[in-house]
Amino acid sequence: MNTIETALSTALFDQYTPDNKAVVVVDILRATSVICTMFHNGAQRVIPVASLDEARHYKEQGYTVVAERNGQKVDFADFGNSPRYFTPEVVNGQTLVYSTTNGTQAIGLSGGAKQVLVGAFLNHGALCKHLLAMQTDVLILCAGWKGKFCLEDTMFAGSLAKTLMASGQFSTTCDSTYGAIDIWNTAQPNIPAFLEHAAQRHRLKKLGLDDVIEYCCTFDLTNKIPALAGNELVAL
Amino acid sequence: MNTIETALSTALFDQYTPDNKAVVVVDILRATSVICTMFHNGAQRVIPVASLDEARHYKEQGYTVVAERNGQKVDFADFGNSPRYFTPEVVNGQTLVYSTTNGTQAIGLSGGAKQVLVGAFLNHGALCKHLLAMQTDVLILCAGWKGKFCLEDTMFAGSLAKTLMASGQFSTTCDSTYGAIDIWNTAQPNIPAFLEHAAQRHRLKKLGLDDVIEYCCTFDLTNKIPALAGNELVAL
Repeated sequence: MNTIETALSTALFDQYTPDNKAVVVVDILRATSVICTMFHNGAQRVIPVASLDEARHYKEQGYTVVAERNGQKVDFADFGNSPRYFTPEVVNGQTLVYSTTNGTQAIGLSGGAKQVLVGAFLNHGALCKHLLAMQTDVLILCAGWKGKFCLEDTMFAGSLAKTLMASGQFSTTCDSTYGAIDIWNTAQPNIPAFLEHAAQRHRLKKLGLDDVIEYCCTFDLTNKIPALAGNELVAL
Repeated sequence: MNTIETALSTALFDQYTPDNKAVVVVDILRATSVICTMFHNGAQRVIPVASLDEARHYKEQGYTVVAERNGQKVDFADFGNSPRYFTPEVVNGQTLVYSTTNGTQAIGLSGGAKQVLVGAFLNHGALCKHLLAMQTDVLILCAGWKGKFCLEDTMFAGSLAKTLMASGQFSTTCDSTYGAIDIWNTAQPNIPAFLEHAAQRHRLKKLGLDDVIEYCCTFDLTNKIPALAGNELVAL
């Protein structure tokens, strides 16, 4: 039997031990949904960077840079953070440097893990299949918003945990995981209505960037599982 | 309209601004349930201290000291942390010094608040009435377990928030508060079954100290609202 745990925000991550576990990083609106989209449409590598200084450094070296802060594209970047930008025409065969407010920070925290995986509804089924085949303990890391808990990442964590536990191969004694499952059970019958309560939905709406919410809540659009290899993400 | 927010554990508290708010500290199993019991049964003052060194110092000065770590009474203390100990015969008119693993740490964090209140199911109704009369913004601080999220405090936060919001006088844009309400809605039909998932329930069971769970989930046993006045708790 493998265990499953959930860190409900990056500020809670240091209370968990990622060593020898598969860490699944989640930032549904929008970083991990964007990364899944990039690989689905043919990107070869995604280099996640936490700071804008690093991102700028890559830009100066000629890389294509995707960067946002507080939802909005930063001035020197080639693209902001909507999954709509990353069509096959744009990303096929490409290497992209990527920096966001929350999601890429979360990826940077996960050192020591057996494997760091990028999770979203878009690759939910493939991710579950992979984790069941890995036969290892799982730690879900919700990116949240600047260290705070957020509903959309928690609902995904609950969905993932519920599926893994339903297999009979995973169990938990983790209050956060049970709480996430309760929240997923509340959300599942009507995800758009549920997300009316999510602060991030309203942040995106204010910026006119909320046209991707339905897309980011689509199950199983891709079989790609982005995974950290050194400092880069590649697709499994 | 007043706002309501929820810090789901002490590790998340520094992301909120307690200034000019009523902070409600919650540690259902068992610190805030114990404190409500003490005042219900006539205690005059409770001095919450975070460290065992402080508690020992008070003991040397002749105070009655209640202290536990990881659920168990510490050697020099007069009492451990079960509400059953604090009968009127024991506490009426008394001053008690109190130190616990999580709850008293949480009380110590809440400086800057307009008022720091101790909340539990035992004083739920009185607390709601007081907060509605105060007409101030509310921040609920769940003590959790060593900085981690816990189900029982979150379920109480949801219950409190739901009641306050149902009055029409409170609203929220806080994801944690909505998540707590979802968890309370899941818990409410069968609290004992819900708490089967709570890690703290199993910690207490292991120590033979789980005979108080039903008591700690009793609504409205008392009208006392413990509140911080300087370094002491007194009953409103």
